[in-house]
Amino acid sequence: MADASKTKIGWVGIGRMGYAMAERLAKGGADLTVWNRTRAKAEPLAALGAKVARELTELAACDIVYVMVSTWDDVREVIAGPQGLLSGSRSPKLVVECSSISLEGSAELRGLLGARGVQMLAAPVSGNAKVIKAGRLSFVCSGPSAAFEAALPSLRLIAPAASYVGEGELSRIVKICHNVFLGVVTQSLAEITILAQKAGVPRHAFLEFMNQSVMGSTFSRYKTPAFVNLDFKVTFTPHLLRKDLDLGLDAGRRFEVPMPLASLTRDIVQTMIGRGMTEEDFAKLLVLQAEASGLTLEAENVPVSDGLS
Amino acid sequence: MADASKTKIGWVGIGRMGYAMAERLAKGGADLTVWNRTRAKAEPLAALGAKVARELTELAACDIVYVMVSTWDDVREVIAGPQGLLSGSRSPKLVVECSSISLEGSAELRGLLGARGVQMLAAPVSGNAKVIKAGRLSFVCSGPSAAFEAALPSLRLIAPAASYVGEGELSRIVKICHNVFLGVVTQSLAEITILAQKAGVPRHAFLEFMNQSVMGSTFSRYKTPAFVNLDFKVTFTPHLLRKDLDLGLDAGRRFEVPMPLASLTRDIVQTMIGRGMTEEDFAKLLVLQAEASGLTLEAENVPVSDGLS
Amino acid sequence: MADASKTKIGWVGIGRMGYAMAERLAKGGADLTVWNRTRAKAEPLAALGAKVARELTELAACDIVYVMVSTWDDVREVIAGPQGLLSGSRSPKLVVECSSISLEGSAELRGLLGARGVQMLAAPVSGNAKVIKAGRLSFVCSGPSAAFEAALPSLRLIAPAASYVGEGELSRIVKICHNVFLGVVTQSLAEITILAQKAGVPRHAFLEFMNQSVMGSTFSRYKTPAFVNLDFKVTFTPHLLRKDLDLGLDAGRRFEVPMPLASLTRDIVQTMIGRGMTEEDFAKLLVLQAEASGLTLEAENVPVSDGLS
Amino acid sequence: MADASKTKIGWVGIGRMGYAMAERLAKGGADLTVWNRTRAKAEPLAALGAKVARELTELAACDIVYVMVSTWDDVREVIAGPQGLLSGSRSPKLVVECSSISLEGSAELRGLLGARGVQMLAAPVSGNAKVIKAGRLSFVCSGPSAAFEAALPSLRLIAPAASYVGEGELSRIVKICHNVFLGVVTQSLAEITILAQKAGVPRHAFLEFMNQSVMGSTFSRYKTPAFVNLDFKVTFTPHLLRKDLDLGLDAGRRFEVPMPLASLTRDIVQTMIGRGMTEEDFAKLLVLQAEASGLTLEAENVPVSDGLS
Repeated sequence: MADASKTKIGWVGIGRMGYAMAERLAKGGADLTVWNRTRAKAEPLAALGAKVARELTELAACDIVYVMVSTWDDVREVIAGPQGLLSGSRSPKLVVECSSISLEGSAELRGLLGARGVQMLAAPVSGNAKVIKAGRLSFVCSGPSAAFEAALPSLRLIAPAASYVGEGELSRIVKICHNVFLGVVTQSLAEITILAQKAGVPRHAFLEFMNQSVMGSTFSRYKTPAFVNLDFKVTFTPHLLRKDLDLGLDAGRRFEVPMPLASLTRDIVQTMIGRGMTEEDFAKLLVLQAEASGLTLEAENVPVSDGLS
Repeated sequence: MADASKTKIGWVGIGRMGYAMAERLAKGGADLTVWNRTRAKAEPLAALGAKVARELTELAACDIVYVMVSTWDDVREVIAGPQGLLSGSRSPKLVVECSSISLEGSAELRGLLGARGVQMLAAPVSGNAKVIKAGRLSFVCSGPSAAFEAALPSLRLIAPAASYVGEGELSRIVKICHNVFLGVVTQSLAEITILAQKAGVPRHAFLEFMNQSVMGSTFSRYKTPAFVNLDFKVTFTPHLLRKDLDLGLDAGRRFEVPMPLASLTRDIVQTMIGRGMTEEDFAKLLVLQAEASGLTLEAENVPVSDGLS
Repeated sequence: MADASKTKIGWVGIGRMGYAMAERLAKGGADLTVWNRTRAKAEPLAALGAKVARELTELAACDIVYVMVSTWDDVREVIAGPQGLLSGSRSPKLVVECSSISLEGSAELRGLLGARGVQMLAAPVSGNAKVIKAGRLSFVCSGPSAAFEAALPSLRLIAPAASYVGEGELSRIVKICHNVFLGVVTQSLAEITILAQKAGVPRHAFLEFMNQSVMGSTFSRYKTPAFVNLDFKVTFTPHLLRKDLDLGLDAGRRFEVPMPLASLTRDIVQTMIGRGMTEEDFAKLLVLQAEASGLTLEAENVPVSDGLS
Repeated sequence: MADASKTKIGWVGIGRMGYAMAERLAKGGADLTVWNRTRAKAEPLAALGAKVARELTELAACDIVYVMVSTWDDVREVIAGPQGLLSGSRSPKLVVECSSISLEGSAELRGLLGARGVQMLAAPVSGNAKVIKAGRLSFVCSGPSAAFEAALPSLRLIAPAASYVGEGELSRIVKICHNVFLGVVTQSLAEITILAQKAGVPRHAFLEFMNQSVMGSTFSRYKTPAFVNLDFKVTFTPHLLRKDLDLGLDAGRRFEVPMPLASLTRDIVQTMIGRGMTEEDFAKLLVLQAEASGLTLEAENVPVSDGLS
């Protein structure tokens, strides 16, 4: 396994997630060059030793280039656009693509890179910016196993856990499964939290127990403040959750796997959207559940831990 | 808070769970007297310093008596039966009842004890014997808050986490909610695990990632060997899970809380039972899901961690 | 088979349903004596040749007494109360009980009657007052087959169809199944009607086709005015539908039959109740469905047939 | 409205459905020319006065040409293929397309026809060959309202009911809604039939009542022999039902209409397919339901009416 500190690493995309990930690389001592459309957002990383590039082509000399942007259009632009990573004569050995893109986009990207002799690791993640900062991110990776081995030292600087699940775009399916599960788990938590509340148990007491129980997860813990104090500042919108549930159901059709809990959760998320709850966090499933139970929710105003900070 | 080592503690019920719990008390230095219907099962605890009682009445001199038996009938027998804990002239100050009994049974027990001036803490748990041994058990408690305070030092010797959720039998509702969630989570895991497998991801690789992800839980980790290697030695039967789902749905009716994911999971567990999968662990939901997907499962024969040992 | 015109028939209960049923008997030439708590409601039947009794005991001389009241408490009162049908020395040969009561109530009633040597036919119906007037009612009957044969001539005067399904209280289960189906069918009609509307098809055009299609039923036709013109004057409340769905699910538990569509419909009806739609007809499931689809419904104000008048 | 007997009508497709429809036109006195790929299948219609064409182009001189073939590929071939209806210099005024094709296919066909100045009526049907013969078919039509008016006299010779639901391909959506409903209704009937059976009511007695009740439909009646005597000779395969449910769910996504009962029924049909029940009629949902209820079904061997013959 290569020494991460001698590998030249490029980073494309300094949004909330990208910043936190690149920051961990920089703090971990990586030889890092970053690029962001809005260059100013990348500047703070210079204080941690990172170089800040003006052009994407400057990253082409790196061994490994990580990409963490928003959409498939953004990914294509930064890789294969007129000023993209591949627009000069050089190209890196390996691209690690971490954005949430579809199987089809991922396969197209692999083709574009392969035509230039660049290997690709599809590497979506589980977690948000706070999870990254808390050192609790996890990667799920697919592509050539050699590419995974090559990336592992730098992946480990970013996250304690990186799983390799196989060739091609398999990690994209796994990420979709993960998000389907996230939707089902949230709806089920909403059902039982409202039941416990109507029976007389305050939400903070109920969730404290659930979080400590064998069923507790990093996720259940970091959603607890939203459920207890009704802070629904968006981390993931109902529309995005519906999209991922639909991707899961599409995969279920293709592979002939019935997914009744996923289907039903999908319809509940659609109901939430139909009822106009579109601009806040999908955790407002709790509010939908309360309404269906004849209950008007109020914030409990109890300080609760998110398990991260 | 009282010093656990000076409090005299009685323990009734040395089954798989009860043994593991009492063993932690003994190893933690508690002044412990245990009783079990089959006395021989309790003997090994003597080597750890516990006294082994011949009669339940011997425990009446304790400050706190824990009860961990199987059914409500057993609970009533050991407390209020002809040779029960209360059959002599003395009685303990507090009974901590940890068995999985109904709200109605719990309330009746509180009445029986109250008539003799004994306080009661309803204290069901989250976890199995392996979880206890690994020091990961959690209690959810209800009853007088003073009773919770009094029990806390000894609860902490058994489990790192003990939540207090309120008066009366509220902890029974919370335990039911916990088990409803456990059913939904298992069915959802079955759906996505089979989807991932049909897409090409081995179950062990898929679950390794899920367990490391923000969605991973102690539960998902200790069910992983069953899902990967198809070891369905029973820990919790489909009939018991159906019973708890029905208790959850009954509570949903009473408190007018619709629980669509719980309802659907309940019907899937019934389907499992109707198809004759009754004698093995409820984790066979994975097999039911595979059949519905036209897939014959085979053990992967990959050593995987259960996260406990 | 006996001649209906020579059989002396008693009728208890002149509500909306009872009036319409008794009216058909009277118009059919039956030798009819009616009783109602509020006697005035029964008077119009005198003009059709019926006798109006002052006391329930006057009906004890009849061969067959029909009962059509509201609740099990009402049934018990009119049969076995201090001034009830059995409070004198005589008793009829046969009671035909048509109210919507539970299996348990039905069995208890059979016991009360049997102790006095009175046979009982449990005979709930499918249809409302308009259906009766249109000559489209149907009975489902259980009890001794001889009782069914004896009642058949008079049943036929009331309704064109009377099915015999077996001994005891089996007809009560069948009625529950019927109402479970009614709930599921209404929810499914709500789903597809809103889908068709959002795609551009007016509700009256959509339902005209559905009613004419092989899927059309007397029920789908008589609910059409409600769906098209949003007239939700109550015929059957959400609470009553929820009760029957719960009875169906209870039977499903007892006989170990999973009923996923019934379960889900039940939870949707609960949601409707939780959202406060309790005082109008259960056909407001259409409104709930529209809201979940981001659609505000307006009456189409198109005259549509209910298929009855 | 034109006189159907003076309008020259062409018919393409003499399968089971097509034969029964064309036969009604011929018996009704229409001036009819038929074409079928296998000419022999059309010959019997000559005895009823129909002309049998050798080439599709012979039908181009007709006023109205009906098309009733299997798939979109067949439709395109017979209309726009090298030997298709439009392959000569003439073309009919109106094509009435009755096959079960998608919205997209329907729109493409309308374009192909429009380019040659031919109007099109999209006219899928509700019913099978036996329904047609029994004179109980219904059409749902969309396209120019003038085209509907022009076709009405001949539509009425085939079927008593023809609904017009609007412009374009709206009738395709309505047909999809119809089939979604058919799936949900069948699953719900399966649930309650098995519940009634396990409670002690024979299936034939249960369904006799349901068919006579306000919930009974032409469909419930003609599925009764399958449910009672387990004759699952295919009329509609599980794969075709799944396809239509998926089309319904796709439309639900597009128009943002959650369809929980349709989703769940879809997953149950998938389960049926996964379990290998693919070659018989979708009414085998009854068998799936019985298995989930721990019941082995046996034919009742009771003659029951299908309500048609």
